[in-house]
Amino acid sequence: MKREILNITSKIVRSVLTITLICINSQFSMAQKTKTVFHDASKFYLYGKAINTTTRYHRIDTATYSDLPATIKKLLTHSAGLAVVFKTNSQTISAKWCVTEAKASNNLTPIAQKGLDLYIKKDGKWQFAGVGRPTNTCSEFTIVKSMDGTEKECMLFLPLYDELKSLEIGVDEGSNVVSLENPFRKRILIYGSSIVHGASAGRPGMAYPAILSRNTGLYFMNLGISGNAKMEKSAARMVSDIQADAFVLDCVPNPSPQQIKERAEDFVKTVRAKHEKAPIILVQSIIREQGNFDLDVKQRVKQQNEEITAAFDRLKMSGIKDIYLITADKLLGDDHDATTDGTHPNDLGFYRMAEQLGPQITKILNQYNIK
Amino acid sequence: MKREILNITSKIVRSVLTITLICINSQFSMAQKTKTVFHDASKFYLYGKAINTTTRYHRIDTATYSDLPATIKKLLTHSAGLAVVFKTNSQTISAKWCVTEAKASNNLTPIAQKGLDLYIKKDGKWQFAGVGRPTNTCSEFTIVKSMDGTEKECMLFLPLYDELKSLEIGVDEGSNVVSLENPFRKRILIYGSSIVHGASAGRPGMAYPAILSRNTGLYFMNLGISGNAKMEKSAARMVSDIQADAFVLDCVPNPSPQQIKERAEDFVKTVRAKHEKAPIILVQSIIREQGNFDLDVKQRVKQQNEEITAAFDRLKMSGIKDIYLITADKLLGDDHDATTDGTHPNDLGFYRMAEQLGPQITKILNQYNIK
Repeated sequence: MKREILNITSKIVRSVLTITLICINSQFSMAQKTKTVFHDASKFYLYGKAINTTTRYHRIDTATYSDLPATIKKLLTHSAGLAVVFKTNSQTISAKWCVTEAKASNNLTPIAQKGLDLYIKKDGKWQFAGVGRPTNTCSEFTIVKSMDGTEKECMLFLPLYDELKSLEIGVDEGSNVVSLENPFRKRILIYGSSIVHGASAGRPGMAYPAILSRNTGLYFMNLGISGNAKMEKSAARMVSDIQADAFVLDCVPNPSPQQIKERAEDFVKTVRAKHEKAPIILVQSIIREQGNFDLDVKQRVKQQNEEITAAFDRLKMSGIKDIYLITADKLLGDDHDATTDGTHPNDLGFYRMAEQLGPQITKILNQYNIK
Repeated sequence: MKREILNITSKIVRSVLTITLICINSQFSMAQKTKTVFHDASKFYLYGKAINTTTRYHRIDTATYSDLPATIKKLLTHSAGLAVVFKTNSQTISAKWCVTEAKASNNLTPIAQKGLDLYIKKDGKWQFAGVGRPTNTCSEFTIVKSMDGTEKECMLFLPLYDELKSLEIGVDEGSNVVSLENPFRKRILIYGSSIVHGASAGRPGMAYPAILSRNTGLYFMNLGISGNAKMEKSAARMVSDIQADAFVLDCVPNPSPQQIKERAEDFVKTVRAKHEKAPIILVQSIIREQGNFDLDVKQRVKQQNEEITAAFDRLKMSGIKDIYLITADKLLGDDHDATTDGTHPNDLGFYRMAEQLGPQITKILNQYNIK
């Protein structure tokens, strides 16, 4: 009888333990399976826009500039330099997004070309939090999970080298998510080549205009037009239409030396005509590391930089004020390791560019109270 | 009459000028069209090999280790860390190569995964010269052109994340090309995860073991096994079979904390049994930047590093000598920007790792006259 009671007691204890464990497991599974609610990102502020567009994630309404070359129009549909900003206390942040079927570039990671890159503010600084890895033309991905439940300011950088067709942000059911206001001050436009556009950053947030914004708190607008920043008259009109406190022209790598000679002064004068007081900062071409051994490439960059310097001197002589020239021989460091392909900075290169350019640009801007 | 003579003279001068220009152009075209002669790269020394293999560009003959997991066997067919070294006075260097149809990784550039990366010695240093961009499963690409015609020492890093099926080096017809001898001293094996393997370098030469070789002159062997460096008994036997002067075990990121606890001591003892005096250097896991906000990831890395530290302490207590532990909390810097995806270093991360690890490793090796 005593043994039977003991047995029954033991069975009851085991059952209670089992039920308790099931409950704990079930709670754990429930916690793991918190439902994700998706919000169309069009409800959140979009940082980096230079001008309003009919298609949200395009950089420019190219219909306005019918004489722009077709390639440029296509490149301006890329969401380079744009970022959605919002505030949430969700412990998980996901995204669903669609891009086009554009082919992979051999000097870009798919994350940089078609993916997403999340920063969150911590200790007063924007810090990397996670990426959205593209898995197909349309992708769904958990960017970051298992965060503490405090409210966080988030900035999600969009694909550098593709057109973003749609974007939804996913947060835990029951959590809050609202738009942030513009977290950056003033407006500085950077017009330039693939290097401005973001090749070959490893992820969207590592393009140098994005790093400059995070480092300085200033609102940099990315008007990088890969391979095609050649200072055409149509491009000059487009740039001059943008409301900006300052203009950075990093457009020496694409045009030939002859084109720089023929176009640079007109370009600057077109911008100056619409922006009487805005500082205009010309940037020489960074060294092409391919030119470390290729003497033709080395010579071409040298000529490009000579022509932009000569154009700058002529502009100064002609009485154009508030223009500046940043020399570029040290922007990538001196170990020749800061590119992915001999032309486009890797993340080491972009880091160095931002470290070098940032203080030089802000020093100029400070004189105009742009800070 | 005078006018006629003048006209005839003028015509003759024009004709001579035209012929001269045609000759110059034709010479120029000929120079441009110098024929490329391709040489099978099997005639050149292959740096980075840990052991002889029946298939030249595999890192290990996995048939020898039948109990290795299948994924590891596949990863060991990747040519990560291998480089062909040769000497040439050609002004152009090209390559023809074939890899497999393995899919693109979203955290790698195709150049890193399937491409080539050329360094040339200049002023006593290995310096970047150009890349081979993969265009298909089989590709042909001009890596560098328009060089001066002096003799140069060349090192061509092979694809990080694919099996190299064939490789031919192309040089100008009439130029010399011969193998170099091994340009590096001693032999140091690095066994480790995807981070050793080279994800997410922008190009093959930016994986950290390759940077360490260039920076130190020492022969580092890359035994990175992406996601699978879990210190299995079979892996311990494989590592211990390699003739090396020192062993670096950067294999904390892949195994669970429990696996580290169960396997690390056995692994080190297996290596020590075959290499009585070789220093064995354990490296903690680098911070996972994903863990900047993901508390689970942060906790896991903390536990992994606690377990490797505890295993190291137990090994020391048990009387195993010539072992070292490198802590890793600062290897990627402190700005959280040094990865492509929150786990894998970008080129900024690899640069920082090499800057931090290099002096710590060489300081240890110097004590053993490994320099």
